[in-house]
Amino acid sequence: MKLEISATLAYRLGDPVDLMLQIEAAALPEQVVAHATLDVGTCTNFARIAAQDGIGERIWLSCERQLNVHYSATVAIRRTAVDYRGLPQVPMHRLPAETIQYLNESRYCPSNKFLSFVADEFGDIQGGAKIGAMRDWIETHFTYVSGSSDVDTNALDSFVERRGVCRDYAHVMVTLARASAIPARVVSGYALGVEPQDFHAVAEIFLGGEWHLVDATGMTREADIAKIGVGRDAADISFLTAYGEIEMLEQQVTVRSVI
Amino acid sequence: MKLEISATLAYRLGDPVDLMLQIEAAALPEQVVAHATLDVGTCTNFARIAAQDGIGERIWLSCERQLNVHYSATVAIRRTAVDYRGLPQVPMHRLPAETIQYLNESRYCPSNKFLSFVADEFGDIQGGAKIGAMRDWIETHFTYVSGSSDVDTNALDSFVERRGVCRDYAHVMVTLARASAIPARVVSGYALGVEPQDFHAVAEIFLGGEWHLVDATGMTREADIAKIGVGRDAADISFLTAYGEIEMLEQQVTVRSVI
Amino acid sequence: MKLEISATLAYRLGDPVDLMLQIEAAALPEQVVAHATLDVGTCTNFARIAAQDGIGERIWLSCERQLNVHYSATVAIRRTAVDYRGLPQVPMHRLPAETIQYLNESRYCPSNKFLSFVADEFGDIQGGAKIGAMRDWIETHFTYVSGSSDVDTNALDSFVERRGVCRDYAHVMVTLARASAIPARVVSGYALGVEPQDFHAVAEIFLGGEWHLVDATGMTREADIAKIGVGRDAADISFLTAYGEIEMLEQQVTVRSVI
Amino acid sequence: MKLEISATLAYRLGDPVDLMLQIEAAALPEQVVAHATLDVGTCTNFARIAAQDGIGERIWLSCERQLNVHYSATVAIRRTAVDYRGLPQVPMHRLPAETIQYLNESRYCPSNKFLSFVADEFGDIQGGAKIGAMRDWIETHFTYVSGSSDVDTNALDSFVERRGVCRDYAHVMVTLARASAIPARVVSGYALGVEPQDFHAVAEIFLGGEWHLVDATGMTREADIAKIGVGRDAADISFLTAYGEIEMLEQQVTVRSVI
Repeated sequence: MKLEISATLAYRLGDPVDLMLQIEAAALPEQVVAHATLDVGTCTNFARIAAQDGIGERIWLSCERQLNVHYSATVAIRRTAVDYRGLPQVPMHRLPAETIQYLNESRYCPSNKFLSFVADEFGDIQGGAKIGAMRDWIETHFTYVSGSSDVDTNALDSFVERRGVCRDYAHVMVTLARASAIPARVVSGYALGVEPQDFHAVAEIFLGGEWHLVDATGMTREADIAKIGVGRDAADISFLTAYGEIEMLEQQVTVRSVI
Repeated sequence: MKLEISATLAYRLGDPVDLMLQIEAAALPEQVVAHATLDVGTCTNFARIAAQDGIGERIWLSCERQLNVHYSATVAIRRTAVDYRGLPQVPMHRLPAETIQYLNESRYCPSNKFLSFVADEFGDIQGGAKIGAMRDWIETHFTYVSGSSDVDTNALDSFVERRGVCRDYAHVMVTLARASAIPARVVSGYALGVEPQDFHAVAEIFLGGEWHLVDATGMTREADIAKIGVGRDAADISFLTAYGEIEMLEQQVTVRSVI
Repeated sequence: MKLEISATLAYRLGDPVDLMLQIEAAALPEQVVAHATLDVGTCTNFARIAAQDGIGERIWLSCERQLNVHYSATVAIRRTAVDYRGLPQVPMHRLPAETIQYLNESRYCPSNKFLSFVADEFGDIQGGAKIGAMRDWIETHFTYVSGSSDVDTNALDSFVERRGVCRDYAHVMVTLARASAIPARVVSGYALGVEPQDFHAVAEIFLGGEWHLVDATGMTREADIAKIGVGRDAADISFLTAYGEIEMLEQQVTVRSVI
Repeated sequence: MKLEISATLAYRLGDPVDLMLQIEAAALPEQVVAHATLDVGTCTNFARIAAQDGIGERIWLSCERQLNVHYSATVAIRRTAVDYRGLPQVPMHRLPAETIQYLNESRYCPSNKFLSFVADEFGDIQGGAKIGAMRDWIETHFTYVSGSSDVDTNALDSFVERRGVCRDYAHVMVTLARASAIPARVVSGYALGVEPQDFHAVAEIFLGGEWHLVDATGMTREADIAKIGVGRDAADISFLTAYGEIEMLEQQVTVRSVI
């Protein structure tokens, strides 16, 4: 699968503002980025740093008056479609050190509150089958409603309200996985099938010694996602973080499959 | 400063339980650990892994019926006492990649809610002086009350209730620092001066290119703290995490200064 | 059914404290109180006022050093056991004015968050049958765990954690009822069958033009409950509210059935 | 002071919906309503009931497709401007029964969390002077920002974020008053000076045996407010409550002073 991606952001700024941008498809063994261009206009203090877990990069910018960003790239996805439902949970004492942070509670994923629910609903099944059952449960019980959540909505809110957007689905999926002691993180990316098209967020679950993308919205497939970055939850994968006041003028994402 | 440390934990377990232990003083350039012994009784599946940011180690255990842990060590602290109040904030585009996660909101530190408060109260001062003013503000306005918080208490709760224990002080300190775009994490450790003596938690703030311990409780000094580990907040530095039911029988910590 | 009730409270007070006490069985057409005695010791400023909705009374006291309260009474319960499951929901425009407050969200019952859940799970059934299905759902999915909740636990927390004590069961029951536009309040009382014996709290639902007791814990029956008072949630029916610091020494409740 | 008031509401409805409307100026000794007209279009099941505390009325409606409401009235305000800052707090055992509910925590006013703050900041002053100091503190530390809060924002959120709209100012004012054991409720109304003009909400505090309007936004004066209704917080005084899906098309309020 080859994806042709473009993203355009335009923001009005008052005073000079420090910004962190994380919108580029990551260079990974499983996804090869070609023809990538990034134009950040007249901003200064451009600095690239490695993003979380060494997946992708973040860019610092200092900007005045206006931010105009245009990014485009072609990404060849070579992710092998593994059926994670058949994979075992890694015994806890065999978990790699770098996965441990993804067992812990985070800003939007208060997983310890879900121990009883997870034991009651999914206590009989293990590993990838359990993750699959959780994913199906979310897709069955939730409704995708644009605008139904905001920057304060955590997995507990979404679980009760039973609706949300992609980040809420990802938060609930991650929360349930962690509540059964399986490492889980969120991934930002560009994906085919997202309706309305925008940046996408999905869960990634550590099973059988590797990370596997799990999209509880049912909108996308593993092979159609170009990863940008990973984190504990939405607090880590914002495509644009402003350390000051900004106002959105335009935000447009396109993702197309090319031969 | 040389500290003689011991910790004893005894827990009753029902079924076999996976446990993660993080109670050993970390081996660091600034603190030299000698005569360390750790006895974990009859537990199995003992596995050591690096802890967060490579500071200290975590230990996996699988245990039945009872957990009896005894740890003792002598730690020579060679931390230079720097007056962080005179240090500058690192410009954002110069921040090392590994500090970025400590700008983000976390489970117990919803820092974005404090932007107005921080701008109003501390907007006129910068860098280390700002951190010092925040620390003093917390010490002045808060009361240390044993048992006044629980595992759900976040920095927002503590800020409103104006009381808490060491972890709550650390959470508020970290939250205010992040709300002014200064990286901040929490540190678990053994410290002289903690009353009643127990594991301690303090904030650590990134100023002038290095991390500096800041204890808003006023109970301890930088030079009297033996670090165990670091994390975004209390969710990352628990001394004992049980993946199953456990019941505390005994927990005792002693810290003494030796010549 | 005739109940013999006694309650003993002993508290240590520091400074003089204003207290509100609400522990007497209410005099109601459906429950006749006899041989009632209330001893409040040396407290002053004793003042009796009508409690919420005119059901029962509240007592103001000003006390120093110690509060010793002893209450005993015999209450004949003449509540007709109606099967509320067969009753209709009152059309909204026919609801009496005094029931409207019990449709609204309250401190522990944020009912608007449950609109989707209630529509999904109970959307096909109406009136008393819906309330019965909700009650059964709670009893099936929740576990009664002493000490599993505290003064901050609201119905949203309990719903996610799926456990609690009587007040949490009552809060969830009330919340689900309000989320389907049926007035619901909480009732404090003395009841046979409460294990461990203590003050009890249950939901009361407005169906077919009258209030009906609904106990989602399954521990008590309508005919075995002597009501003390009613309110929107636990914030209104506390048996003892102190406007200052107090410390419990003893609290003992006995309820026996007598011929 | 005589106010000429008008309010126009237009909403699109999907299915038939039960609605509760509370937009009419209340008939009270202190405010005389003249020339009032209310047009609710083609809705059915019109039923008027007394609103909370017998202040004003609520109207039930069942509507299809569209709701078009127009209300206009002239209200002569004869409220004596008393300086509440000089009034004493009523001793608790002298509080009328009907004020007690306004001491308790409510949906948006979790007052018990503010006991320490209130004792620290306002512990030295009493009664009306304390209420005045609280009002001034809020006005000084808060910024009025349209759109900065939503239906989930409670007084704790507003206190931390230090901004909000009229209902948030009222919630914080009420919360601080209750935290010092002074009964406090919220009042909806039409008021001169509200910018942008809309329905207004202010606190009402029980001092010296009577209720006194206290507007922490500083936008309005007691004599310029025509009360609609009262309640524990915003959960009780919504001008329109829909028991089903609705979508706002237009909402316009005008308030003018006439000779």
